[in-house]
Amino acid sequence: MVGGGQGAYIGNIHRLASRLDGHWTLVAGAFDVDPDRGREFALNEGLDPARSYGTYQDLIAGERGREDRVDAVAICTPNFTHYPIAKALIEAGFDVICEKPLTATIEDAIALEALSRQSGRFVGVTYTYSGYPMVHEARVRIARGEIGDVRTVQVEYPLEWMATAIEQKGNIQAAWRTDPKKNGRGGSIGDIGTHAYHLAGFVTGLTLETLTADLATFVPGRALDDNAHVMMRYEGGARGLLWSSQVALGNSNGVRLRVFGSTGSFQWFQEQPNELIYTPLDGRVQTIKRGADDLSEDAKVRSRTPPGHPEGYLEAFANLYCGFAEAIRARLDEREPTSIGRNIPLTYDGLKGVAFVEAVVDSAEGGNAGWVTPIAV
Amino acid sequence: MVGGGQGAYIGNIHRLASRLDGHWTLVAGAFDVDPDRGREFALNEGLDPARSYGTYQDLIAGERGREDRVDAVAICTPNFTHYPIAKALIEAGFDVICEKPLTATIEDAIALEALSRQSGRFVGVTYTYSGYPMVHEARVRIARGEIGDVRTVQVEYPLEWMATAIEQKGNIQAAWRTDPKKNGRGGSIGDIGTHAYHLAGFVTGLTLETLTADLATFVPGRALDDNAHVMMRYEGGARGLLWSSQVALGNSNGVRLRVFGSTGSFQWFQEQPNELIYTPLDGRVQTIKRGADDLSEDAKVRSRTPPGHPEGYLEAFANLYCGFAEAIRARLDEREPTSIGRNIPLTYDGLKGVAFVEAVVDSAEGGNAGWVTPIAV
Amino acid sequence: MVGGGQGAYIGNIHRLASRLDGHWTLVAGAFDVDPDRGREFALNEGLDPARSYGTYQDLIAGERGREDRVDAVAICTPNFTHYPIAKALIEAGFDVICEKPLTATIEDAIALEALSRQSGRFVGVTYTYSGYPMVHEARVRIARGEIGDVRTVQVEYPLEWMATAIEQKGNIQAAWRTDPKKNGRGGSIGDIGTHAYHLAGFVTGLTLETLTADLATFVPGRALDDNAHVMMRYEGGARGLLWSSQVALGNSNGVRLRVFGSTGSFQWFQEQPNELIYTPLDGRVQTIKRGADDLSEDAKVRSRTPPGHPEGYLEAFANLYCGFAEAIRARLDEREPTSIGRNIPLTYDGLKGVAFVEAVVDSAEGGNAGWVTPIAV
Amino acid sequence: MVGGGQGAYIGNIHRLASRLDGHWTLVAGAFDVDPDRGREFALNEGLDPARSYGTYQDLIAGERGREDRVDAVAICTPNFTHYPIAKALIEAGFDVICEKPLTATIEDAIALEALSRQSGRFVGVTYTYSGYPMVHEARVRIARGEIGDVRTVQVEYPLEWMATAIEQKGNIQAAWRTDPKKNGRGGSIGDIGTHAYHLAGFVTGLTLETLTADLATFVPGRALDDNAHVMMRYEGGARGLLWSSQVALGNSNGVRLRVFGSTGSFQWFQEQPNELIYTPLDGRVQTIKRGADDLSEDAKVRSRTPPGHPEGYLEAFANLYCGFAEAIRARLDEREPTSIGRNIPLTYDGLKGVAFVEAVVDSAEGGNAGWVTPIAV
Repeated sequence: MVGGGQGAYIGNIHRLASRLDGHWTLVAGAFDVDPDRGREFALNEGLDPARSYGTYQDLIAGERGREDRVDAVAICTPNFTHYPIAKALIEAGFDVICEKPLTATIEDAIALEALSRQSGRFVGVTYTYSGYPMVHEARVRIARGEIGDVRTVQVEYPLEWMATAIEQKGNIQAAWRTDPKKNGRGGSIGDIGTHAYHLAGFVTGLTLETLTADLATFVPGRALDDNAHVMMRYEGGARGLLWSSQVALGNSNGVRLRVFGSTGSFQWFQEQPNELIYTPLDGRVQTIKRGADDLSEDAKVRSRTPPGHPEGYLEAFANLYCGFAEAIRARLDEREPTSIGRNIPLTYDGLKGVAFVEAVVDSAEGGNAGWVTPIAV
Repeated sequence: MVGGGQGAYIGNIHRLASRLDGHWTLVAGAFDVDPDRGREFALNEGLDPARSYGTYQDLIAGERGREDRVDAVAICTPNFTHYPIAKALIEAGFDVICEKPLTATIEDAIALEALSRQSGRFVGVTYTYSGYPMVHEARVRIARGEIGDVRTVQVEYPLEWMATAIEQKGNIQAAWRTDPKKNGRGGSIGDIGTHAYHLAGFVTGLTLETLTADLATFVPGRALDDNAHVMMRYEGGARGLLWSSQVALGNSNGVRLRVFGSTGSFQWFQEQPNELIYTPLDGRVQTIKRGADDLSEDAKVRSRTPPGHPEGYLEAFANLYCGFAEAIRARLDEREPTSIGRNIPLTYDGLKGVAFVEAVVDSAEGGNAGWVTPIAV
Repeated sequence: MVGGGQGAYIGNIHRLASRLDGHWTLVAGAFDVDPDRGREFALNEGLDPARSYGTYQDLIAGERGREDRVDAVAICTPNFTHYPIAKALIEAGFDVICEKPLTATIEDAIALEALSRQSGRFVGVTYTYSGYPMVHEARVRIARGEIGDVRTVQVEYPLEWMATAIEQKGNIQAAWRTDPKKNGRGGSIGDIGTHAYHLAGFVTGLTLETLTADLATFVPGRALDDNAHVMMRYEGGARGLLWSSQVALGNSNGVRLRVFGSTGSFQWFQEQPNELIYTPLDGRVQTIKRGADDLSEDAKVRSRTPPGHPEGYLEAFANLYCGFAEAIRARLDEREPTSIGRNIPLTYDGLKGVAFVEAVVDSAEGGNAGWVTPIAV
Repeated sequence: MVGGGQGAYIGNIHRLASRLDGHWTLVAGAFDVDPDRGREFALNEGLDPARSYGTYQDLIAGERGREDRVDAVAICTPNFTHYPIAKALIEAGFDVICEKPLTATIEDAIALEALSRQSGRFVGVTYTYSGYPMVHEARVRIARGEIGDVRTVQVEYPLEWMATAIEQKGNIQAAWRTDPKKNGRGGSIGDIGTHAYHLAGFVTGLTLETLTADLATFVPGRALDDNAHVMMRYEGGARGLLWSSQVALGNSNGVRLRVFGSTGSFQWFQEQPNELIYTPLDGRVQTIKRGADDLSEDAKVRSRTPPGHPEGYLEAFANLYCGFAEAIRARLDEREPTSIGRNIPLTYDGLKGVAFVEAVVDSAEGGNAGWVTPIAV
């Protein structure tokens, strides 16, 4: 692991999630931009001192020569460092698991996607919400035609934690997320709008055609948007509405997806992730529960307990790690991955996310310019 | 009453709502475009045969000369007839209660608003959702500054009943709503988007500055939009997102309003109308219940029962009728109306609604034209 | 109307509910134990001074001789006065609508039920919750066998308003409800437990066989129970659990019924009364909505608006008044009542309620005595 | 681990939960009553063949002599085997983690509790629901007096999976749960009622005084109760109502606790475990969220992610494993355990559970016998 040391939120999530199902063991890391602090953190985690590195360059150098070198490296650093670290790792022959957004700039994203493609290295991107079993269930059922043609998609990701200028009061997480150099051109749209965009495309299978956006910055002194509205048109005529916000008081982590088709609809709310609400045309609103017998294979392999035993965010994240493990093993074994190793977020998904942010900011900055098509969809 | 006879949904609502609190008695009507059927309906309702009219012209002629002439006339006809009927009534000296949208065209709306203003006649418009007590509670608290500056408003009105081409299969309600001549230029945006737009402005007190919209028609053969996305900018910098849909399977009457301010937020969902969800900055999500002791005067006068005894749509509609009665009485008494007669929807609100639809359709039809400012806000 | 004047909660409910559908007009009343205050109240309600009575005896004397005498009299007084007033009215040939519980003592209940039966007079009892359309829907579907044999019934009625000794601080409503002379032997069990008991029996069609109960009084100084637990056994082997409480903080009016059968279950919660939750064996949890096309006749005649337009407590109460009107008309016309006039709460239901309270208190006071069978089930 | 091999539900839960936080590693096991199948299972789990045992006796013999012997052994076998296995393990000097109920008979429970006490061995009992952070939050706040004196506790544990006679159709889990020899005298009350009873006592801190119960068996041919109603009286005057059911269609795992005190109430529902609903006297219903800043230390140490990132059943179970690890380490270090190692379910809790079942069955079988006091409370 690179980054994700003391005080980092997401690093701990990666460690918990990778451990849950027994497919991964953390054996090496360069956890901090401060080498000493990073090494200390590694020792506290119980790592071998020889594999407690000060920098990612040291990690590459150290692991490269080992018989028991790491199978993959998770990158949990701020956005703007994803590209150089991933590049160095890929060039050194390592597989990579990268936090989203893939990179801070579109140029980096294009380059990383190309590098990943050409090198044959595995690059997984942690679009967490596509790890949830009921999200897969919706995807499978839509692909089967259970709601007919998708007409409109309402997706939202409201948060409340940045409703005041906490970045000016010592909150490190908020500080880099509001710094265009570290976070990229998008604020809320880059940090969480990308999750929403990926989720909508993942579940519906639709390809974005064009979008128009309105960005706002409500907290005084903030350099990036903290609220984004986007209207989307998909190929084939479906429409979408996306809202991301970092200032929506009352919302802890309010990812919500609603997909309306010609013969049915699905609703999924991340804070009650074990339920998928389904309404058929001329039928009743009903609840499809995680763990039920009639779920798809894709949902079942991402589920550990029967209905009524809540699984959540860590299990979804763990599902991504299971999928990454399976995809890497399948490549080594020269076989197709099983279900859990398919339909997982990869580099091109990451590139699409960065291209989406780019298009949103272009549309919004263009003022009256109107509809914009991302460079990768 | 004009219109609202046999088979009409909204006519019965007006009758129930006007009767609930004892302020109104139905004594005369021209209930149907077919005079015989209208008279028969009137007799079945127990009206005096002398006041069971065949046409609205007859009603005007008949009531004009009576000592005990009606105090006001409710117009429950399709949109395109609102203007001629209202005009004739006003010119004959009657007060009017008019269904929304005020008119089918912007020209009619401008004319009717001017006529109402100049004549001094009362013209109430039944924006039902502004009759709910907890909507008033939100309005009062926002006006008091309880959530600080409003930043963003998410308002939606999804319906499912027109998800298939029922207008081609004999559904009269759907037929006129999908006919541009009878309904006006807006489909879902005219029929229900106007409710959502009014609700957002009513609660926040914000004035719309400009909007950009995307309309879609998903049901084959339909002439008007059945799904609308609108991004809005309000004076002072607040933003809004509005969604109306007639094809959103799973939604019976899903009016939902969420208002996020700098120090708090409110959420209100029409299908659970007795609760207003409030979240203060750095505080907990909490439920303000209709009937609670600490509610505003405006909410209290629109409430009849203690918390836990659900009031709903008819009570909200009845609140409008109570308000209209009080406003008319106050004018006769030459005094200010009490709370229930204030903050009620009038002609200018109706005009704003029609101007909003006009701007939405202009924006959407303009394709890449972008942001449009309605002629009345 | 007798009782229900200034400051009375339930009197106003009766007036609103009886007016909604146009079947009843309030023309006479003796509204207060203080004759002057009662007459003043009547005049304020717009009643004819000649029919604004000081006492119920005056009302009987005054109405008896009129051509246009009242069709029925609603009794909205404290429990202990129900019997003498109802008796006088019935003996004078009036039909009666009586608040629940029917009487304060079992002796009175037996006598009133007998009198009603022998006189042929109509006596309706306002078990409000049996007025809700979705309660009827559950009843019809259970009778049709849609959930198989009923196994267990969980019914509860928690309230919070008497969580402190408000009866000692001037709250009149609480004062008589905690006075054994006025309220009868049961506290929470008499005031609201009877509603829960009636609801459970009404929906399931089950006949109580025996019960055992535990009563508690939590507020110091209170003379009657404010929390009751009852275990019930029905004929045929079904079981029930009933909880009533006046001290359950957080519950405004939390009537909740859950019925579990061998092939399905229903859940209904009074604060979301437009939904009936249904789960078939091996099927999904689903929502049956008031206003849906596939509802029973019994639910449809008790419903005024389409799904998504909330109806509530007043509409349920109004359904009882519609049913009472129809039952009385049918008797006058010597015909069977239509659906709305059937399955309405009558004197024997009232008697069962009082017998239930009696048995609960007997069981609880008997300490270890155990299971008790009410005298009327 | 003993038991919990192929096809066992709870064994896998123990493995996932113990692994999540990195405190435990599975190194040895006797997973099946069939030694060969058990060894095969162990090998598939990646265990050292030398530590893949055929029987628990072999496991004891094998581990006893090792330098790196296991720190503790989890018992995941049917109820009636808990005692002999635990006894052998304790006598061999191992610490034990035992599934609930502690034993199948009260005699075994008394003996095991005494043995645990006298030996000084650690015996943790997996009352899962006491692992949830918001359950601890409720416990801490009640202990602090935040809802005043507890008045009444409503606790329920309804399940649906045994609504038909699946034990007769090859379901192994259902088969031993309905066999009095393997499960003990209680059916639903033993299997899940004990969870509910423990949860109520754990959160409120109340001591049971006496109870009366009504058991039913609804599925034909079943030997034990599948539905239980229990009325409880606690020391100091508080009351409780407990419902457990294996036939409650619509309920996946519906553990629900509601505690009403003199100045507030708490509600917690296991299927939405991240929220604790709190209502203060004269205040609003509000949501306390897992992960919030103002939570108790006890809740914080049992939480891994911020609000809005759902944690669930596995995390709760993992919290027990964290607590067991800490309790064992603290004993070795001769220090007090930190928060996570305190307030964890131990042998005496297990004994109380078995005594509760015993008292419930005694009360129910006694017919009219009434109130019974468990031998351990």
